[in-house]
Amino acid sequence: MTDGAREHCDLLIEAGHVVPVHPHGVVLADHAIAVSNGLVVAVLPTAEARTRFAAAQVVARPDGCVIPGLVNAHVHNPMTLLRGVADDLPLMEWLQGHIWPLEAQLIGPAFVADGISLAIAEMLRGGTTCCNENYFFPDVQAATYKHHGFRARIGLPIIDFPSAWARTDDEYFDRATEVHDQWRRDPLIATAFAPHAPYTVSDANFERIRMLSDQLDIPVHCHVHETEAEVGESVQKFGQRPLARLDRLGLLNDRLIAVHMTQLTDAEIAQCAERGVSVVHCAESNLKLASGFCPVAKLQRAGVTVALGTDGAASNNDLDMFGEMRSAALLAKGVASDPCAMDAATTLRAATLGGAMAMGMDHLVGTIEPGKQADLVCVDLAQVETQPLHHVASQLVYACGRDQVTDVWIGGHRKLDGRVLVDIHIAGLLANARQWRERIAGIKTR
Amino acid sequence: MTDGAREHCDLLIEAGHVVPVHPHGVVLADHAIAVSNGLVVAVLPTAEARTRFAAAQVVARPDGCVIPGLVNAHVHNPMTLLRGVADDLPLMEWLQGHIWPLEAQLIGPAFVADGISLAIAEMLRGGTTCCNENYFFPDVQAATYKHHGFRARIGLPIIDFPSAWARTDDEYFDRATEVHDQWRRDPLIATAFAPHAPYTVSDANFERIRMLSDQLDIPVHCHVHETEAEVGESVQKFGQRPLARLDRLGLLNDRLIAVHMTQLTDAEIAQCAERGVSVVHCAESNLKLASGFCPVAKLQRAGVTVALGTDGAASNNDLDMFGEMRSAALLAKGVASDPCAMDAATTLRAATLGGAMAMGMDHLVGTIEPGKQADLVCVDLAQVETQPLHHVASQLVYACGRDQVTDVWIGGHRKLDGRVLVDIHIAGLLANARQWRERIAGIKTR
Repeated sequence: MTDGAREHCDLLIEAGHVVPVHPHGVVLADHAIAVSNGLVVAVLPTAEARTRFAAAQVVARPDGCVIPGLVNAHVHNPMTLLRGVADDLPLMEWLQGHIWPLEAQLIGPAFVADGISLAIAEMLRGGTTCCNENYFFPDVQAATYKHHGFRARIGLPIIDFPSAWARTDDEYFDRATEVHDQWRRDPLIATAFAPHAPYTVSDANFERIRMLSDQLDIPVHCHVHETEAEVGESVQKFGQRPLARLDRLGLLNDRLIAVHMTQLTDAEIAQCAERGVSVVHCAESNLKLASGFCPVAKLQRAGVTVALGTDGAASNNDLDMFGEMRSAALLAKGVASDPCAMDAATTLRAATLGGAMAMGMDHLVGTIEPGKQADLVCVDLAQVETQPLHHVASQLVYACGRDQVTDVWIGGHRKLDGRVLVDIHIAGLLANARQWRERIAGIKTR
Repeated sequence: MTDGAREHCDLLIEAGHVVPVHPHGVVLADHAIAVSNGLVVAVLPTAEARTRFAAAQVVARPDGCVIPGLVNAHVHNPMTLLRGVADDLPLMEWLQGHIWPLEAQLIGPAFVADGISLAIAEMLRGGTTCCNENYFFPDVQAATYKHHGFRARIGLPIIDFPSAWARTDDEYFDRATEVHDQWRRDPLIATAFAPHAPYTVSDANFERIRMLSDQLDIPVHCHVHETEAEVGESVQKFGQRPLARLDRLGLLNDRLIAVHMTQLTDAEIAQCAERGVSVVHCAESNLKLASGFCPVAKLQRAGVTVALGTDGAASNNDLDMFGEMRSAALLAKGVASDPCAMDAATTLRAATLGGAMAMGMDHLVGTIEPGKQADLVCVDLAQVETQPLHHVASQLVYACGRDQVTDVWIGGHRKLDGRVLVDIHIAGLLANARQWRERIAGIKTR
């Protein structure tokens, strides 16, 4: 069957449907994706693809729908080991009585590597191929994501308190630039500054971040306006709302990945649009911690890039981007009192291209287009739960479960094959999780 | 291994955990459930169970957690065939421009039977064992649920308009009592009056329902206070809010299963508590149609029985009670601005015992207790997505996917065995769904 006239490609995925995300709203029936050297080469009708390409490998998924890999734009994946350890509590009791005391005992390279490994298995099984990480020990994070061939932007933490990662401001910055330097040319791993939040980072440190993020040309990933209390405290302490303070410090620009943003005036929304600030909406975390409601429909109408994030598994409690799409799409309608808010195609865009844009990675991922990385996810829609198949995008966002993900590729590498993780040993992962459960159960909290 | 001294039982399920729901909040480790003649005989430590019972069948699930079968307290399951057919539209355009014109062409015995069959497969795979049905052709509904051995309360529709089911008020009532009479002694199928909503049912018909529901001793399952517009229109037309009107007509009592209830004053909440009205909270449907927010935390605090329902697949778009638990628990916190609202155990209770109580079936189902029907669901918690296992109830509500359901029994009959549907032919079901897709695609709507 080889044919000298046909172009070689490494992989041809023939799918019942392809949703490339760009152009917006398009659903292609009986299309194929040709991949070579980790990049998408062409998206074309399957019949045409078979004539044009001689593929080293063909994966036929007649009942499958291929979408860009989902981008989880806000995670604290080491905290996956704390999933459900303290739920249904007031925010400060949760944080001060449980999460922080546990972290004080646990944070270190092993906790970070093991938590992220568990998270990667969950993310791959759920169709996520890229995440925006935000935790301590970015060196360990980067090595762990790299080891698993998982695409990530690693936050370089800055916080005004000593931690197991760094004791002083200078140490935080020194270690940050060190990690950045080590990974700056990696095709899979990138970095961002990750100042924890306006209420835990000083003006001086924010100014230093602004200067360095410009020099290093990396984003700034920060919790902003998560709760009403945070905004009130800032007004008391600084005489300014956090966004105004960040503006004064020169951070309100297209590098800023502002996470949560549940408290926004119309003027602030307009300002974010004008400055190119991206917003990561964490619908389920905001609900679970009763933080407030992010006005996503208004942000999207204003032209602000909206991405989706699960937040950490300690406040969600999963890394399920299918679930997060559904929650975000449903909640947007309720909050806007408008059943047309955040329709299915717009939601899928937020979970893919939106995340890539917010993270400054839309030249690499977020859509299925020639020249982009082959970060691809195939979903089986021929399941009882997504039948009849009247509208593909509706099924993906409103009905599809993450368990319907059959195949995942990152940069053309197969990571999930017919729902089996290609290079992760599940039994070992589960045994490790059980060990952490025992250890964590032995730590006395409030 | 037989032992004359041991009691016989038909089935012994040995599980890593059992959450019986009653007593509230209890999680039993390494417990077994003995079943005979379709009933739960005992719930006891596995070691003890092995000494006490000689079981005809033993099902060992050391990584499994057994919970009562989930009760979906509000469905329109024939509409499963319309899943995703018209999303992201304003309510009236959705209803008048799409759903009603489609239904006008489609409603009949085949649509009802095929939609419910597809729904039953989805419900069983997702751990639901009982539902509160509300649609036309209750005779076909009852026969279909019975055929599949699925527990249901069938709504006997009453609406002031002619339909394919009945043309006049008298015909609606005649056919209703006929269906009731046919099924009144069935162990699996029960009935309820199902007046569509206050805005589509006259005073005279409500009065007739009140009289007949008392005589026949069956509940009244009705959409109530779904939207602000509905309440406003009632005030204009009747000079009363719908709940006040139902009170005047004698329907505000412990027979009433009031669905949606997004518009409630504190006085109305107190009145519902006093009268024993049950509320079915459809979190995802209310969000998707932007109907408003049901104040579940307030209702629960007032002592009102709260059940959960998915609503029809045309407005959800799934029948996933695990997803609905998560949505309800998360949304309750956001709406109440209280992260302690609707905790995991309370949510699981609403999805089981709450539904059973609302439907007047808590003497049969809703908890795992000796003497109750063996409607049981086993969930595999040894999956990456629900590890580490710090708290069982948290994992069930906040992290577990419906795909983790491994086994389902209804009245002691195995319906799902290691994720395989015991007596449903999936390929036939999918072929049928494809036929309906073609047929529906051929119908011209707006």
